[in-house]
Amino acid sequence: MARPTPLSGFPELLPADRVVEQQVLDSLRATFELYGFAGIETRAVEPLSVLLRKGEIDKEVYVVRRLHADDTGEDAGGDQLALHFDLTVPFARYVLENAGRLQFPFRRYQIQKVWRGERPQEGRYREFLQADIDVVDRDTLAPHHDVEMARVMVDALSRLPLPGVRLQLNNRKLIEGFYRGLGVDDVAAVMRVVDKLDKVGGDEVARQLREDVGLDDAQVAGCLRLPQLSSGADDAAGFAQRVRALGVQHPLLEEGLAELVAVLAGCADLRSERVDVVADLSVARGLDYYTGTVYETRLLGYEHLGSICSGGRYDALASDGSTTYPGVGISFGVTRTLAPLLARGALTASRSVPTAVVVAVVDEARRADSDAVAAALRARGVPTEVSPSAAKFGKQIRYADRRGIPFVWFPQDDGGHEVKDIRSGEQVPADPATWTPPEQDLRPVVRAAADTPG
Amino acid sequence: MARPTPLSGFPELLPADRVVEQQVLDSLRATFELYGFAGIETRAVEPLSVLLRKGEIDKEVYVVRRLHADDTGEDAGGDQLALHFDLTVPFARYVLENAGRLQFPFRRYQIQKVWRGERPQEGRYREFLQADIDVVDRDTLAPHHDVEMARVMVDALSRLPLPGVRLQLNNRKLIEGFYRGLGVDDVAAVMRVVDKLDKVGGDEVARQLREDVGLDDAQVAGCLRLPQLSSGADDAAGFAQRVRALGVQHPLLEEGLAELVAVLAGCADLRSERVDVVADLSVARGLDYYTGTVYETRLLGYEHLGSICSGGRYDALASDGSTTYPGVGISFGVTRTLAPLLARGALTASRSVPTAVVVAVVDEARRADSDAVAAALRARGVPTEVSPSAAKFGKQIRYADRRGIPFVWFPQDDGGHEVKDIRSGEQVPADPATWTPPEQDLRPVVRAAADTPG
Repeated sequence: MARPTPLSGFPELLPADRVVEQQVLDSLRATFELYGFAGIETRAVEPLSVLLRKGEIDKEVYVVRRLHADDTGEDAGGDQLALHFDLTVPFARYVLENAGRLQFPFRRYQIQKVWRGERPQEGRYREFLQADIDVVDRDTLAPHHDVEMARVMVDALSRLPLPGVRLQLNNRKLIEGFYRGLGVDDVAAVMRVVDKLDKVGGDEVARQLREDVGLDDAQVAGCLRLPQLSSGADDAAGFAQRVRALGVQHPLLEEGLAELVAVLAGCADLRSERVDVVADLSVARGLDYYTGTVYETRLLGYEHLGSICSGGRYDALASDGSTTYPGVGISFGVTRTLAPLLARGALTASRSVPTAVVVAVVDEARRADSDAVAAALRARGVPTEVSPSAAKFGKQIRYADRRGIPFVWFPQDDGGHEVKDIRSGEQVPADPATWTPPEQDLRPVVRAAADTPG
Repeated sequence: MARPTPLSGFPELLPADRVVEQQVLDSLRATFELYGFAGIETRAVEPLSVLLRKGEIDKEVYVVRRLHADDTGEDAGGDQLALHFDLTVPFARYVLENAGRLQFPFRRYQIQKVWRGERPQEGRYREFLQADIDVVDRDTLAPHHDVEMARVMVDALSRLPLPGVRLQLNNRKLIEGFYRGLGVDDVAAVMRVVDKLDKVGGDEVARQLREDVGLDDAQVAGCLRLPQLSSGADDAAGFAQRVRALGVQHPLLEEGLAELVAVLAGCADLRSERVDVVADLSVARGLDYYTGTVYETRLLGYEHLGSICSGGRYDALASDGSTTYPGVGISFGVTRTLAPLLARGALTASRSVPTAVVVAVVDEARRADSDAVAAALRARGVPTEVSPSAAKFGKQIRYADRRGIPFVWFPQDDGGHEVKDIRSGEQVPADPATWTPPEQDLRPVVRAAADTPG
């Protein structure tokens, strides 16, 4: 087999980088569990019809079939399968499928890979990890959950070794109400055009709104003014005034504005040196079917990655015809965030293995002595390897050094023991039944490099 | 959307069962890391050509393609992709791809889903979790690793809430040497036939060996006698005598026998009430390309599941033409083992959520008081939810009870606090800054039901 080459868009990590990713995943999970979210996993595949119901994403789906599927047996007629492209659609299906066996409101986190056949680029992969939290209820879902989801995710992000973040809030009712107040009929068409503002600029958006959607000049001007409004979390009241000062009136606009101001106020005390919270009326979450609050999140210094953490509220996350399940949630793009940071060396692990101690082997005939030391250390939770060979001690020390393992243990000829910190060179007598490495050396430590340019 | 139905072969867990699975995965990982294995993950897909190189498995592979892949762009001419069916083939590819950046011998664990298009039945799924450990070196790999891999996996299994296990050892050199000593030319053909012994019985195997492979009566008799030999770990010497008493001589037979006896002796002290270790010459690992030690593992009382944990040694786990990478490892079938146990109620979690405490809400206007209590408890690592509604306390207590959450916290009108253990009904004053639940209530506890029939 010739040396294989990486597959574009399917990032894989070397062991030291995986240490970083694993600690990030552990931290996310610990935070989500601290808030009482239950962890679930859904299968990787969904019927294609379920995935395509959301529309617009069909180009990005990977379909899956058995290599030797035939058209006469069990594969005939059945719905085609495809890999899920997010965790929201499978979660909605899971809720419907298990509704009778779940307790509502149901709070769950889900950390899994998803697949999209997009053209790979930095921050965009074909296989990537997402970490989602959602709460879903039957019929109605209390509005305080919109605040809670943002707070949980900001807490989770704050515990990671990341640059600061800016949480950006908006509300789809506000946007839709504003357009309706302007007299726009085809709200969806306007949203689709305005959503391209970043890419094509105001002049082109104005031209399309005028020529393709048929808006008049006053309507076009309004549509371009709204996304320019934003506000820090400390000025919710002033922000509401500025929205109303645009002169557009509609009940849905007022409803969305009240909801947005409530979420903004509910998150105001999250602000810190590393966390900013703003209302930003340019945030629309494109074509996703949110119906109220929407969230986006920028990583400070890495704004070119786009939103690393997005979500919102659905009036109907799922529905089986008789019961509707409203939900609100946020999804953190783990791979999208970590891969660029790891590639820049902005996050590093102190070693590439869990091992804290390598027990040297004096000669192969005495390997059992070294095994016994390792067993004693492991019994007290110290990750320990026994040297794979009874080579010269210098070579055994290099085995540890190359992996960043801090300690090498030497059984002595007289039955005693010594342990060497190979960083300092200090070697001291030690008892395998009681010796423990310093707390900070027990596990690999993840460090964030200061001032790594985005 | 009508209520969806499960997809056969793609098991999904309800939250309480996921608690069990997650604790099993955490325990496996903790054990593997205690022995210094680095955790890695590989992408879900491999080029189809890489997967089919192993042969014989092509019927079971799921191929993957973009729904709108065209034949002229980036998808044209490239190798087709498919989901991996085990973790060994992707690991071998990862080793070759990253050989220059890994430290050898390289010890890794890998816990991931794999996919096979087999017909689903109990213990056989189309999507399932495997937990693998392997060690791989360049050119040669020391024989003590064959003992080590078995010991690590037995330790890992012993820490799980499972019935006892029987580790079954064999050696492919022993089998091949025995056949060669009998004068068999087509060793692979004989292995394929003898591998069916369990399914078709001795008479049919004898007929096929005679008629299809062309063996004579003495050869057939030898082929049928060998798999009948087995031995406890306490009788390695007597076992070697019984193998030699079959009267077949070949250098490869002696080499394999010596290796098998060494692994058996190296694992002898693992035996306990819950762990048995035997040599069993009927264990051949079918068509896998092992070249020395092979392992299988039976779950006591659940022998009908087949081997739940299998592996062995490859002289060439991977090779790039100039360098060969020998390896030895074992793979534990997590889903294969847990799904039947969960279905029988043999493993249960004390609650379906991580939450230890629900903080009641007196009325919505005072939700912030309850949020503050929750924040204080979480700051000391106590998983806490705030009641989603300010309903009557009886309803808020039922919210906790339905999820198995042990404690409900009540902010008092006078600014004081009380916490109720809803199992005993006991309610006591408590301070959110200092109160902590008993250690055994902090996390969900997994219990194994005694005497659940396999």
